[in-house]
Amino acid sequence: MTHFADRLAAAVRRCGNPVMVGLDPRWEQLPACLRADLDPRDLAAAAHAYGAFCRDVIDVVAPLVAVVKPQAAFFEQLGPPGMAALADVIAYASGAGLLVVVDGKRNDIGTTAAAYAEAYLGPGRLSVWGGDALTVSPYLGADSLEPFVELAVQRAAGIFVLVKTSNPGGGLFQDLVTTDGAALYQRVAAFVQQAAQRTAGSCGYGAVGAVVGATYPEQLAALRQAMPNTWFLVPGYGAQGAGARDVRDAFDSTGLGAVVNNSRGIIFAYQRREYQERYHEAQWQLAVEAATRVMIEQLRSETPAGKLGKEITDEE
Amino acid sequence: MTHFADRLAAAVRRCGNPVMVGLDPRWEQLPACLRADLDPRDLAAAAHAYGAFCRDVIDVVAPLVAVVKPQAAFFEQLGPPGMAALADVIAYASGAGLLVVVDGKRNDIGTTAAAYAEAYLGPGRLSVWGGDALTVSPYLGADSLEPFVELAVQRAAGIFVLVKTSNPGGGLFQDLVTTDGAALYQRVAAFVQQAAQRTAGSCGYGAVGAVVGATYPEQLAALRQAMPNTWFLVPGYGAQGAGARDVRDAFDSTGLGAVVNNSRGIIFAYQRREYQERYHEAQWQLAVEAATRVMIEQLRSETPAGKLGKEITDEE
Repeated sequence: MTHFADRLAAAVRRCGNPVMVGLDPRWEQLPACLRADLDPRDLAAAAHAYGAFCRDVIDVVAPLVAVVKPQAAFFEQLGPPGMAALADVIAYASGAGLLVVVDGKRNDIGTTAAAYAEAYLGPGRLSVWGGDALTVSPYLGADSLEPFVELAVQRAAGIFVLVKTSNPGGGLFQDLVTTDGAALYQRVAAFVQQAAQRTAGSCGYGAVGAVVGATYPEQLAALRQAMPNTWFLVPGYGAQGAGARDVRDAFDSTGLGAVVNNSRGIIFAYQRREYQERYHEAQWQLAVEAATRVMIEQLRSETPAGKLGKEITDEE
Repeated sequence: MTHFADRLAAAVRRCGNPVMVGLDPRWEQLPACLRADLDPRDLAAAAHAYGAFCRDVIDVVAPLVAVVKPQAAFFEQLGPPGMAALADVIAYASGAGLLVVVDGKRNDIGTTAAAYAEAYLGPGRLSVWGGDALTVSPYLGADSLEPFVELAVQRAAGIFVLVKTSNPGGGLFQDLVTTDGAALYQRVAAFVQQAAQRTAGSCGYGAVGAVVGATYPEQLAALRQAMPNTWFLVPGYGAQGAGARDVRDAFDSTGLGAVVNNSRGIIFAYQRREYQERYHEAQWQLAVEAATRVMIEQLRSETPAGKLGKEITDEE
């Protein structure tokens, strides 16, 4: 199988945009038709609704974007039936030709980290969960990250290590300045860049990527310069407040190097004022499509992603 | 329900020891009788074996110790059937009167962190997974930790935040010295101690605890002084190399304040040379019991935990 970074580059080029759709099913926000008369305490029923919702989103976005990111937390919230739904959603997305980054922010000490890596890294039957990539937390250090790096390379999968997260309080520890003058997140970035460099595919990017929030555009720009071999997974677009201009510097000059995630702003677009006027709640899939197309257009017109492959045709 | 820290204190006093048994089922190490002719690629069968193994361990240790720590990674490695086994194991341990710390090292940005907290915090029917506590990673900062703290207080549950982990490479980031002279782990420790202080139960310890490895005894001792309201979850005993003397300073003067985890050294004791001579593999439960009793005795004789309640009777 082709190297993860090369598969991601090819998929982003083929779609002509770097949009990543976050699959964050939240019960209170599901369209009423999917919740129907269900009791959310009936975990199997709620998990079934999550699965149906995510499959519908996937059907809408698969022709438009390269990659989706299911958020494990929301599935875990439904217990074992939720985890079964997560597995189904990953398989369904893969089957629809999408790359799947499982957002689990996992990690542990060496031998346990290896178990997480075994579990999640590798699409299709290469791993139990079938992820193309997994988000990973760096706090436990090098020997916790190495098992992920090693298995990612073996299985043509990827990881995205948390470097500079998008939340307002992310800086409490990440921005602490160390005695050599670099902030903690810059030290993590240096480690990740080294791992990316030594695992680089033919596109120049490595199997090891970084999570870098759109909500800190200056640091994002500086990290792009400091991490030339590192794919960025950029959260924070949309509901968290960042726009296309904030992610302009996440890309290299060819428009590669970053995928920009949007979860609520796309999957629950039917609740946004601009779409409420155009679509009934029962037409929520149309709002998903419209919001995806708008984000694609914004990124293509205001960032180097405009240089990627084809324009999408506007079929609306 | 009683405050988590007070429940933990009462349970540790009642048992007269601070031993925590880690439930880390690993396929290759399961006693042969449990693997029988199973194919580990048959996830449902393997998950069934994990469940049977953990229930047997629980039966053996429930009369002896206060708390167990199932490691989520090994269950996740078996996909959805593994997660169902994890839920069963948590429920079985709770039913046996044990406190259950789910070792998931979870975290994410605010609203997603809240989903993890909802999912795992609260014994019995208070949460979907039924954990008394969850291990949590600090890299995402204050607003990622607050939802856990808040819900832990509401549900009389607890969290253990990674401060100084037991792995050899843990220091790569944790030991970085910041410009005020404190290492990163000390900055995390200060945050955790504040949260512990403001959530303190009547025993003086808070709903927020810390993971502090036994493999760094000097830092462990210093953190005990710096974190007077913080329960410690101390990994690293046994297979990772630390012994009773290394954890001596984890306790307060009454023998409270720390639970010391041992996973492989207890649950796979039948593979250790000292027990291989005494027990056949089919008697692996006897090795679990013997190893647990030895660890209890070591901690009681060489640490302040000797001041806790009763001596256990040696029925061997």
